[in-house]
Amino acid sequence: MNNPFFKNYGPFSIKDLLKDSKLVEPEKFNDDLIHDIKDLNNANKNDLTFFHSKKYYSQALKTKAIYCITLKNLSDYLPKECKKIYVENVLLTISQITKKFYPDAINDNFDNTVKKIDELNLGNDVEYGQNVLIGENVKIGSNCFIGHNTIIEKNVIIGSNCSIGSNVIIRNTILEDNVFVLDGCVIGKKGFGFFPNNKKNLRYPHIGIVIIGENSEIGCGSTIDRGSMSNTVIGKNTYLDNQVHLAHNNKIGDNCILAGQVGIAGSSSLGNNVMIGGQAGISGHLKIGNNVQIGGGSGVIKDIPDNTKVMGYPTKNLRQFLKDNK
Amino acid sequence: MNNPFFKNYGPFSIKDLLKDSKLVEPEKFNDDLIHDIKDLNNANKNDLTFFHSKKYYSQALKTKAIYCITLKNLSDYLPKECKKIYVENVLLTISQITKKFYPDAINDNFDNTVKKIDELNLGNDVEYGQNVLIGENVKIGSNCFIGHNTIIEKNVIIGSNCSIGSNVIIRNTILEDNVFVLDGCVIGKKGFGFFPNNKKNLRYPHIGIVIIGENSEIGCGSTIDRGSMSNTVIGKNTYLDNQVHLAHNNKIGDNCILAGQVGIAGSSSLGNNVMIGGQAGISGHLKIGNNVQIGGGSGVIKDIPDNTKVMGYPTKNLRQFLKDNK
Amino acid sequence: MNNPFFKNYGPFSIKDLLKDSKLVEPEKFNDDLIHDIKDLNNANKNDLTFFHSKKYYSQALKTKAIYCITLKNLSDYLPKECKKIYVENVLLTISQITKKFYPDAINDNFDNTVKKIDELNLGNDVEYGQNVLIGENVKIGSNCFIGHNTIIEKNVIIGSNCSIGSNVIIRNTILEDNVFVLDGCVIGKKGFGFFPNNKKNLRYPHIGIVIIGENSEIGCGSTIDRGSMSNTVIGKNTYLDNQVHLAHNNKIGDNCILAGQVGIAGSSSLGNNVMIGGQAGISGHLKIGNNVQIGGGSGVIKDIPDNTKVMGYPTKNLRQFLKDNK
Repeated sequence: MNNPFFKNYGPFSIKDLLKDSKLVEPEKFNDDLIHDIKDLNNANKNDLTFFHSKKYYSQALKTKAIYCITLKNLSDYLPKECKKIYVENVLLTISQITKKFYPDAINDNFDNTVKKIDELNLGNDVEYGQNVLIGENVKIGSNCFIGHNTIIEKNVIIGSNCSIGSNVIIRNTILEDNVFVLDGCVIGKKGFGFFPNNKKNLRYPHIGIVIIGENSEIGCGSTIDRGSMSNTVIGKNTYLDNQVHLAHNNKIGDNCILAGQVGIAGSSSLGNNVMIGGQAGISGHLKIGNNVQIGGGSGVIKDIPDNTKVMGYPTKNLRQFLKDNK
Repeated sequence: MNNPFFKNYGPFSIKDLLKDSKLVEPEKFNDDLIHDIKDLNNANKNDLTFFHSKKYYSQALKTKAIYCITLKNLSDYLPKECKKIYVENVLLTISQITKKFYPDAINDNFDNTVKKIDELNLGNDVEYGQNVLIGENVKIGSNCFIGHNTIIEKNVIIGSNCSIGSNVIIRNTILEDNVFVLDGCVIGKKGFGFFPNNKKNLRYPHIGIVIIGENSEIGCGSTIDRGSMSNTVIGKNTYLDNQVHLAHNNKIGDNCILAGQVGIAGSSSLGNNVMIGGQAGISGHLKIGNNVQIGGGSGVIKDIPDNTKVMGYPTKNLRQFLKDNK
Repeated sequence: MNNPFFKNYGPFSIKDLLKDSKLVEPEKFNDDLIHDIKDLNNANKNDLTFFHSKKYYSQALKTKAIYCITLKNLSDYLPKECKKIYVENVLLTISQITKKFYPDAINDNFDNTVKKIDELNLGNDVEYGQNVLIGENVKIGSNCFIGHNTIIEKNVIIGSNCSIGSNVIIRNTILEDNVFVLDGCVIGKKGFGFFPNNKKNLRYPHIGIVIIGENSEIGCGSTIDRGSMSNTVIGKNTYLDNQVHLAHNNKIGDNCILAGQVGIAGSSSLGNNVMIGGQAGISGHLKIGNNVQIGGGSGVIKDIPDNTKVMGYPTKNLRQFLKDNK
C-alpha cells in the first residue's frame, strides 16, 4: 500500500539519498532509482528498507527491498540479492532519508487548509455543531455527528455512523464505521520521536497514520499519536476510557478494553480481548497476547503470553500478586 | 427525587418491560404499571428495582419497590411483598429496561440544542467570553464567569459566584455556589459503562448526573463522568488538581484534596477530609473512610477505614510502607 | 528582577502589612516602607522575605531583606541586620501579605481582555488559525504559528519561530525562541495551592510565571502551572510528551525528556539531561540531579544524585530493581 496521506517526493537515486549519510566505509553508489522507503515487511523491489535490531531478523530474511540500511553484524540475516549499506546509526540515517521522501511528515503546525464546515459541500448526511473546521482531503461518511469547535484537519477519512464530540482534533487518521470519539481527544499528531541532540533534538518524520476499527470508542481527553514508519492501529469494537495515551506505532487488537488513564509507550502490540485496568502502563516494543488481563496500576515491562492475568509493578501472575500482598 | 434531567417515557406495564428479557424460568406477568426504575434505596412502591450482589443486602431488606430484578440465591434478602423476577444477568436486563424508560440517556452525541450565549437572555449577572454556547434547560446563577469556547450543554444548573474556565464542556450537572471549574474540563458525559459483546459492545444508559458541592474546585483537563443508576457526587470545599479522572457513580466527601492525575474507578466512595497524593488510583466499588490520607502513586484495591494513612501498590499502612522501603 | 506580569500595588508600611497577622508576641511596628515581597534569594533591602523551614538555611544566612517573617526557632540563621517577625504560620501570613502586593495573582477567571487576533496589528510575521484570541500585554516574535481556537491570554511573551497548536490556553508565560506547544495544552494557570480550611479553603496568590527555554516542546494535553513565589521553569531543548503535568515552582533543566503522563508535584527541581519514563511521578520539594534516568511508572519520593539510574515505587537503583524483580 502506498502512503495514503503523505506525498512521496521520490524517486531519488540511491547516490542522492546517501550523499549526507555517515557510512561505515566509504562507498560509491550508482544511479539506481529508489521509489520509497518502507519497513522490512512492506518494502518492494524498488524500495529502500532498514534493519537495525536482531529482534526483526525473521522479517529481514524475507525482505524484497533492493537496498537495506543496516549494521555490519546484521548483514547475514538479509537476502543475498539485497544490497547492504552499513552506517553508524541506522535510525538516524533512515530519518534523514525519510525526510527527503516525505518532507511534510515532520512538521505538525496547525492545519491552515481548513475551512468552516458550512462553506463546504460535504454531500452527506452530517450533523455538525458550531465552529467546525474541515481540512483538505477529508471524507466523511453518512449519518455522522461532529461536535462544536472540532477540527478535522487534513487527511482524514471518517466512515458512516460515526460520532465525534466537541473540541476534538484529528489528522492523518482513518475512522471506520460506527466509531465514537469523545470530547477533547487529539488523534493523529506526530509521536514523541526524535534523536536527542545537545542544543537541538532532531525530530524524525512520522509517515504513519492512525486507523481505528469499526464500533470502537475513544474516551474524553485521550491522545493517540500516528506512527513513524508504520501505523498506529486500534482494532474493532475496542473501547478506550478517558485520558488514555497511545504512543506511535502501537497496534491494539479487537474487543479490547482500556480503562481510564492507561498509557502505552511506542511500538507495542496488544492481541484481541485484552482488558487493562485504570492507570496501567505498558513499555515500548512489547508484545501482549490475546485474552490478557492486566490489573489497574500495573507496570508492564516484558511480553505477556496469551490467556494470562497479571498485576503489579512490574507485573507478575495475578494469583502471585494477590498472594504476595495478602 | 425524580430524575431532574432525563425524560421518563414511562409508565410501562411490567409485561411490556420484560417481554425481551431472558428469564430464568418462564413466567407470566400482569399489567401492573411501573413508573420508574430506581436503585434499592430510592425505589418507591410503583417502581422496579434490582439486586445483583449480596454486598447490598442491607438495602435490599428495606426496599419499597413493587418488583425487583434479581438472582434466585438472593431472594431471601428481599421483603416478602416485593415481587422477585429472576434473570440470568441482572445488570444486562436492567440496562435494557432503563433504555425503555430513558432512551435519551445512552447517546452522548454533541448537543445540537445550543445557542450562542449572546442570543440568550440569561437575565443574570454573567460575564462570559467569546464563542460561548449554552444548551437547553440551563440555569446560571448571578455573578458567574464563563470562559471562551466553553460549551454548557443541556441540563446544567450553575449556582452563584461560579467561575468556569475556557474550553470547558459540561452537561447533566449541578454546580452549587462558588464552584470553580478550570480550563479544559469535561464534566457530565456518560461513563465507561457497557456490556462487552463480541462484534459490538452494548452501552448502558447513564441516567445519573454530576453534583459538585459549594466552594469546590476542579483542576484543568479533568474529566468527571455522570452516574449510571445513581449520581456522581463531589462534596463541599473539595479541590481536585489538574488531569484528575473520576468515573461514574463516585461519591467524594467534603473537604477532600485530590492531587494531579489521580484516578478513581467507578462506584467508589470517599469520606470527608480525604487527601490523595498525585497519580494515586482507586479501584471501583471501594469505600474509603473519613480523614484518610493516601500517598502519591498509591494503588488502592481494598476498603480503607477512617483515620488511616496508607501508601503503596497495593497500599499498606504508611509507617509500614516507609519501613519496608528504607 | 521585578515581576514582569503582575502589578505591584506597594509600597506599604510594615505596620499596615502586619495589621491582620497573627503574631507570636504582640509587637509594635514602625512606618518602614516595604517595596516588595520576595524569597530569601531575591529579596533586596527594601523587601520583606520569609523563612519557614531549616531546609533553606543557607539562603537565609545571606538574605538582604530588611524584614523576615519566620519562626522563633529559625531566627539564628538570619543575618543580624534582618528584622525578624515571628508568626504562628509563616506561609499563611505570607499569603495574606502577598495578596496585598499582588491582588491580581489569586484570581484566574478567564481573561476578558482578549481580542480576536485579526483585530490586532501584531506587526509581525505570524500565521494564525481561526478564532484565535489574544489578551493584553502579549508579544509575539516573528515566524510563529498559532493554531485554531487558541487563547493567548494576558501577559505572554512568545519568541521567534514558535509553533503553538490548536485549542491551547496560555497566560503569564515566556516562551523563548523555537518552542513548540502542541494541541490542547494549558500553561501558566495558578497552581494547586491553598491553605485547607474547613468550609472554605484559602487560595494563595501565584505571582510566579512559566518560562520555557528555546527549542523545547510541550506535548498535547499537558498542563504546566505557574509558580507561587518563584517561577516554573523549563530549560532549553527539553521535550515533554503528551498529558504531562508540571505543578507550580518546578525547575526542569536542559535537554530533559519526559515521556507521556509523567507528573511532577510542586517545587521540585531536575538537573540537565534527565530522562523520565512514562507515567513516572515525582513528589514535591525534591532535587533530582543531572544525567538521571528514571524508569517508567516509577514513584520518586526522595532526592536523586547525579548520574543515577533508578526505577520502582519507591525508586531504587535500576540494577537492584531489575534483580529484585527477576
